[in-house]
Amino acid sequence: MNLVLVAKVVLVLLLVIAAFMVAPLLVAIIYGETAMISAFLIPMAGVMLVAGLYLLLTRGVRGSLSTKDGFFLVTMSWLFAAGVGALPFTISGWVPSYADAFFETMSGFTTTGATILTDIESLPDSLLFWRSLTHWLGGMGIIVLTVAILPLLGVGGYQIMKAEAPGPSVDRLTPKITQTAKILWFIYLGLTVLETVLLMLGGLSLYDALTHTFGTLATGGFSPKAASVGHYSSPFVQWVITAFMMGAGINFILYYRLLMGEFRLIRQNTEVKAYLGIFLVATLIIALVLNRGYYATFGESLRYAGFQAASILTTTGYATADFALWPALAQGILFALMFIGGSAGSTGGGIKVVRIVTIIKQGFNEMRYLIHPRGVFSIRLSGSPVRKDVVYSITGFAFLYIFLLVVTAVVVSTGGHDLLTSMTTALATLGNIGPGFGRIGPVENYAFFQDYIKWFLSFIMMVGRLEIYTVLVLITPAFWKR
Amino acid sequence: MNLVLVAKVVLVLLLVIAAFMVAPLLVAIIYGETAMISAFLIPMAGVMLVAGLYLLLTRGVRGSLSTKDGFFLVTMSWLFAAGVGALPFTISGWVPSYADAFFETMSGFTTTGATILTDIESLPDSLLFWRSLTHWLGGMGIIVLTVAILPLLGVGGYQIMKAEAPGPSVDRLTPKITQTAKILWFIYLGLTVLETVLLMLGGLSLYDALTHTFGTLATGGFSPKAASVGHYSSPFVQWVITAFMMGAGINFILYYRLLMGEFRLIRQNTEVKAYLGIFLVATLIIALVLNRGYYATFGESLRYAGFQAASILTTTGYATADFALWPALAQGILFALMFIGGSAGSTGGGIKVVRIVTIIKQGFNEMRYLIHPRGVFSIRLSGSPVRKDVVYSITGFAFLYIFLLVVTAVVVSTGGHDLLTSMTTALATLGNIGPGFGRIGPVENYAFFQDYIKWFLSFIMMVGRLEIYTVLVLITPAFWKR
Repeated sequence: MNLVLVAKVVLVLLLVIAAFMVAPLLVAIIYGETAMISAFLIPMAGVMLVAGLYLLLTRGVRGSLSTKDGFFLVTMSWLFAAGVGALPFTISGWVPSYADAFFETMSGFTTTGATILTDIESLPDSLLFWRSLTHWLGGMGIIVLTVAILPLLGVGGYQIMKAEAPGPSVDRLTPKITQTAKILWFIYLGLTVLETVLLMLGGLSLYDALTHTFGTLATGGFSPKAASVGHYSSPFVQWVITAFMMGAGINFILYYRLLMGEFRLIRQNTEVKAYLGIFLVATLIIALVLNRGYYATFGESLRYAGFQAASILTTTGYATADFALWPALAQGILFALMFIGGSAGSTGGGIKVVRIVTIIKQGFNEMRYLIHPRGVFSIRLSGSPVRKDVVYSITGFAFLYIFLLVVTAVVVSTGGHDLLTSMTTALATLGNIGPGFGRIGPVENYAFFQDYIKWFLSFIMMVGRLEIYTVLVLITPAFWKR
Repeated sequence: MNLVLVAKVVLVLLLVIAAFMVAPLLVAIIYGETAMISAFLIPMAGVMLVAGLYLLLTRGVRGSLSTKDGFFLVTMSWLFAAGVGALPFTISGWVPSYADAFFETMSGFTTTGATILTDIESLPDSLLFWRSLTHWLGGMGIIVLTVAILPLLGVGGYQIMKAEAPGPSVDRLTPKITQTAKILWFIYLGLTVLETVLLMLGGLSLYDALTHTFGTLATGGFSPKAASVGHYSSPFVQWVITAFMMGAGINFILYYRLLMGEFRLIRQNTEVKAYLGIFLVATLIIALVLNRGYYATFGESLRYAGFQAASILTTTGYATADFALWPALAQGILFALMFIGGSAGSTGGGIKVVRIVTIIKQGFNEMRYLIHPRGVFSIRLSGSPVRKDVVYSITGFAFLYIFLLVVTAVVVSTGGHDLLTSMTTALATLGNIGPGFGRIGPVENYAFFQDYIKWFLSFIMMVGRLEIYTVLVLITPAFWKR
């Protein structure tokens, strides 16, 4: 293990995070929140001092990262990012418990959106801005940014992208990984600008538009408003956020294809078709259920249904209504969506649509084998056959996911929390969704959990975000063998 | 499809069921329940008339069954068995709704133990005896019996055993399938006699001992007592039932090995070690939790914990306490056990221990591949390597299981039932457990569900019992293609 180099990369990442703290610092200055200035300046200065000294001392060290280093680096990046990102919460005194602050920040960087805040709107605007910014940085960003900046330090590493890229497949858009990172980053930035402008046209202030854009595009779910997106009654605003949540749950590589005019590749993409199909069916069923007296018109039912289906499917976690009060079937559909998640290569979490599609296709194949034991049946996605070992790995992933859900539910129940809460807490954290049912419903929060459960859930959010294997591989004996 | 032959086999099976109705008929005569006599005689006479005529007309038809016929036959057997077995409930007027009677009987034959009865002890003893007997017949029996009798009709068919045998592996004990069936049947009978005698030594009447033995060895869970096994305060009785539930959850082929003195094969059996390990760990944790004031002594806590862990792990569903009132962690452990189930080749349901072990081993292998992408890693069970396509099929099965759980939960929620009830109803029926949490807790029942949900759950119990693929293969287009 090249620990010197790994530490170097992690410190560069922390420098990037420190640099982004300039944004909430500016908010603090503009909004006159003078008490907040030191809460951002202290961690910034600390990171610059430590990282500066270390990089100075190791400036001669070059080399490349092995696959093992890649895994270790990714996990360490998220741990330290959350560790440093939590400091403004604690230093400012608004979140005195470091366990709480770490949970909140990990929830931000993993784009989960689970919060321990009980009275969100009492917090300073600059701190809430930082909270939303952790989503934006985490969603697509931190590692991709790092990948784009690392080469400047003489560190290349496709293995990082391999470990980091959300979902099972990374198309090689361009041969050079930094080039890929930059393209994806510009798409992300372009969508950010577009949504911010649209939300401002819908009547939101720049501050509100930016923070909600961060939460949307990262499929995060943090809102500076206690009522989440329900704070805004404008149908236009709600539809814009619905559209951008759905947009953020699509493989970002498809946007690149779109820009290149490769429409055929998009039309035959199995995942995007399944993803939109699931959304439309779920929305329609929920809307029909809600139309029986829950909302005044079918259009209104459709708006609330579409928003919530998009929010849960993409694992964003925003809410325009307390869906825990909706009819059982609507809740059942949302519960089922919690098992799916966004697309691979998007900012969405969960098992991912492409895995669900693969496994269902595999299920049908198994039945064909029962009828024709000597037949040869392969699975096709987007018109191409999928290698057996990939299918293999995907079904294994899905089961490991379920296994971790059960383990997490048991751990949560050790705190004396009821089964529904324990189960949906597992779903909402491992799937990076945020709200669930029971005591963590859409109008609830995670504050009441014991500290050890908060630490455990912080870990589970990271495990879910980093596609499970990336983190769990570190605790296998094989990893630590020479 | 050889429909003439399939119908022949199904009718022979119904004749066997009609023959077993002699037992409750005798109970009715001995207990003086004269009103019940016709309730058994009518279906018996009906089956004998129809089957007798059909077998007479087709006595010249011989031949063999194809794989497709095998699948169709197994599903039809369970459907018709439940259809005919339900008649005494409806004819006697004790369960006027046929949907209810069918549900109850399917629950019996699938050894689920979910009941729609709200006042069990008001029913005649003969009817409750029949109810428990459906467990005993279903548990190991019906199809194995059929396999042992079929050759007399000129019908061979390893494919039936292949489709029916619970679990992914059928060791070929002896080359002839009927021989295997007979051996397993004698082991089952031996255990039945042994448990009945032990329970009578514990103070139970022959009737009570027999009905509870049926429920135990089939891992069913029906009891003629409203308080289930909790009716008997004797620790001896409770420990005997715990031991036999655990015994019924072990691969029956291991008993054959035991009789043959092949202890080495038992010692190195991965599944039985994992199964006992899971039981011991779960029991210990629950006992420690219960020991904090729930029961007077640790011994008592251990007894209640062991009973419930065995009951849920083996998917029996008996209860000595209302575990819905236990602390959250104890509930969480039981909830986790609901995902596991008994061993392959036992009467237990669920995903099965061997599948869980395989998938966890596969999960670790996937991580080894991440570290050494060019390595070759295989999974070993009981000292032998497992073929890749078997692992493949097992992970596919587990996921299909989870997928069906979600679908079932959604269907149940269409009836307006809360999420916890919907989720654990799915677990309790697909896993053939019986009781769950929420409105189907250990002191509750399934009577309140709408009829369409009862029909659906009857189907799901069958799907779970027949290892999913056996039934689902019938609804694939490939099956119906020539």
